[in-house]
Amino acid sequence: MQLSKYLTAVRNKAPLVHCITNYVTVNDCANILLASGGSPIMSQNKFEVAELVSAVDALVLNMGTLEDLEAMLIAGKEANRLNKPVILDPVAAGATTLRLDAVKELINEIQFAVIRGNASEIKAILSGKKLGSGVDVSALDTVTMDNLPQAVEVARMLAEKTGSVIAVSGAMDIVTDGSQSAVVHNGCATMSRITGSGCMLTSLIGAFSSVADNNAYFATTMSAITAMGVCGELADTRRLQNGTGNATFRTDLIDAMFNLTEEKFNGGARFEMV
Amino acid sequence: MQLSKYLTAVRNKAPLVHCITNYVTVNDCANILLASGGSPIMSQNKFEVAELVSAVDALVLNMGTLEDLEAMLIAGKEANRLNKPVILDPVAAGATTLRLDAVKELINEIQFAVIRGNASEIKAILSGKKLGSGVDVSALDTVTMDNLPQAVEVARMLAEKTGSVIAVSGAMDIVTDGSQSAVVHNGCATMSRITGSGCMLTSLIGAFSSVADNNAYFATTMSAITAMGVCGELADTRRLQNGTGNATFRTDLIDAMFNLTEEKFNGGARFEMV
Amino acid sequence: MQLSKYLTAVRNKAPLVHCITNYVTVNDCANILLASGGSPIMSQNKFEVAELVSAVDALVLNMGTLEDLEAMLIAGKEANRLNKPVILDPVAAGATTLRLDAVKELINEIQFAVIRGNASEIKAILSGKKLGSGVDVSALDTVTMDNLPQAVEVARMLAEKTGSVIAVSGAMDIVTDGSQSAVVHNGCATMSRITGSGCMLTSLIGAFSSVADNNAYFATTMSAITAMGVCGELADTRRLQNGTGNATFRTDLIDAMFNLTEEKFNGGARFEMV
Repeated sequence: MQLSKYLTAVRNKAPLVHCITNYVTVNDCANILLASGGSPIMSQNKFEVAELVSAVDALVLNMGTLEDLEAMLIAGKEANRLNKPVILDPVAAGATTLRLDAVKELINEIQFAVIRGNASEIKAILSGKKLGSGVDVSALDTVTMDNLPQAVEVARMLAEKTGSVIAVSGAMDIVTDGSQSAVVHNGCATMSRITGSGCMLTSLIGAFSSVADNNAYFATTMSAITAMGVCGELADTRRLQNGTGNATFRTDLIDAMFNLTEEKFNGGARFEMV
Repeated sequence: MQLSKYLTAVRNKAPLVHCITNYVTVNDCANILLASGGSPIMSQNKFEVAELVSAVDALVLNMGTLEDLEAMLIAGKEANRLNKPVILDPVAAGATTLRLDAVKELINEIQFAVIRGNASEIKAILSGKKLGSGVDVSALDTVTMDNLPQAVEVARMLAEKTGSVIAVSGAMDIVTDGSQSAVVHNGCATMSRITGSGCMLTSLIGAFSSVADNNAYFATTMSAITAMGVCGELADTRRLQNGTGNATFRTDLIDAMFNLTEEKFNGGARFEMV
Repeated sequence: MQLSKYLTAVRNKAPLVHCITNYVTVNDCANILLASGGSPIMSQNKFEVAELVSAVDALVLNMGTLEDLEAMLIAGKEANRLNKPVILDPVAAGATTLRLDAVKELINEIQFAVIRGNASEIKAILSGKKLGSGVDVSALDTVTMDNLPQAVEVARMLAEKTGSVIAVSGAMDIVTDGSQSAVVHNGCATMSRITGSGCMLTSLIGAFSSVADNNAYFATTMSAITAMGVCGELADTRRLQNGTGNATFRTDLIDAMFNLTEEKFNGGARFEMV
């Protein structure tokens, strides 16, 4: 699978990505979209989101602070009607009843191209039950070499149920569309020491989804995840060399996306079909 | 026109600038205000904005996420009553009906000292019609040497209509108060690869407007735009030297404002009356 | 008083800190919590905050943009019921009637472990009257060697009245629980040239409060303040060496917390009981 070409496609298309997202990491989402070659627009005003959707190339719904469910539903349905990819980041989906109800409604009402979350969030959606606590993955849900087959199966089942590409982020990332599945080994532990790694990745998946061939979002999702992971590794190498911390890492991560080339991408990409 | 003196005036006055602005770039607006020597206050709560306005030196209304139109109207009218400068950033004014209606209401109800937007936003306000898409300038509206006279004329007409200084940001920046007009050549393309360049500039115009002589906002707006452009160039020189990206550029841009001196300002300023 | 051990305790516990905080500095609060070894969750949705509180180790209420008073009250009461520490940052408490009423209601309804503000905010709370303007400390309220005894007495009176540890931030920081009082001399003037120094510190106090022995929040508050001050000094040394500005300072400050060791902490700590 040749993934790096989608990076070039994003740079050439300069997709406009509409994000209805949380106020914690919204600035980082905007800047990594710009770093990738895309362009962000962030309105969550229910009186204009449908109108905005008509002008954009992809829509990202991020449940981070969940104050805009109605706007998400309006925007998502309009994007479906216009056959534009919609991406869901079900932040802390299993942490509260409010979130669990919200994610069920979103998945019932909107056809998502891609759903990206951590293992706890994906399990909560599949089971329909409260599971995790907070926004981080539960230790019980961490994907390892030992439980990888079961984790892939959970993702695959959700892909079949929803008709969406499912991406499970963690030390190993799982991507599946139900028929084909892969594991991405890129990334680094420091990504979990900044806020917004997941949100930024979901925004990027939005940009990459806009250049999918025939709605084949498996390859573009793989590309976005691998690109993000490679950039994380580049930033972590700098952190270790310079003795800096998580704040500089965040800056270097976005910079790495700004300067990512197909050559660096292909040199760093580590994934396998499973 | 001696522009750098307003930088020193801002550093001496330390103006308190009240921004009703979007959650995407609000942190950058606060930090560049602090870098310039000003101080930010960001409340958009309609139950207190009038009270806050009585204590501040300038008010900035930024339509970025447009969830606070009522607070903007209350604050703007109070600032008018107290003869404090009010600045408008009509973000994506022509992108949706909601925004077009909002900008019309704001301009009808409030006397702005300065309105700063990109060419698409300024054209949308003048025409009263939906034009642009998204938050970026439309390619059709990009100001070049060829269409500069027409672009200046559009800005000049809006200045006459509104009684405001009009600033049009782009590769070349246009500033006019209706009787005098100028073009600023400072700045760099990387400024459009971060979110918030425009919002930060509008916040700065707020700080600089607070040191205007006799409400003469043309010179202070020229000063803020030129200062921002010079800082952009300084940051871009660093980016090219160090091989960094847009995230470091953002940091270096604010740092450049923090360390800007009248000497650097005058050494870098490039503008002409037209 | 051995303060550095609480840093290690935070790193070992990895507390989940729920912040209901403003959209201006929320990203910085999240990243400095992660730098300290904690983990942030930021929801201010009144329909889920009580449920979230049951899963977290501390709750931080920051009045910065004050759009979520009802959520603050619900979350704070639930945290009290579950005996989890609640921290208050009464941003601009004396600046408007709205804020003064809000802080009164919060203090009446919720038992705070710690209240941290600047001298103007603390005086406004104690007096129940509007005093300061904006978010910055009034010049009249600046704590110096000359008025230190009076400033300590103001803080001590509020500690007795509220049963909370009171922390007064400034060039010198005062901490008191009513019976014991201390002054922290760490920190630097550049901390007031970025937005969010105070908000970040309050978030850290939340993390440190979660490792207090027997609800003894005086020592953990001292530890968080001293740690923040030491990191500010480390970041300012870098700024002076590298000729950078306030934006890089912000990054370096968070990095310094990421890399803070007990050795650096003890080497830099400067405080005295008063």
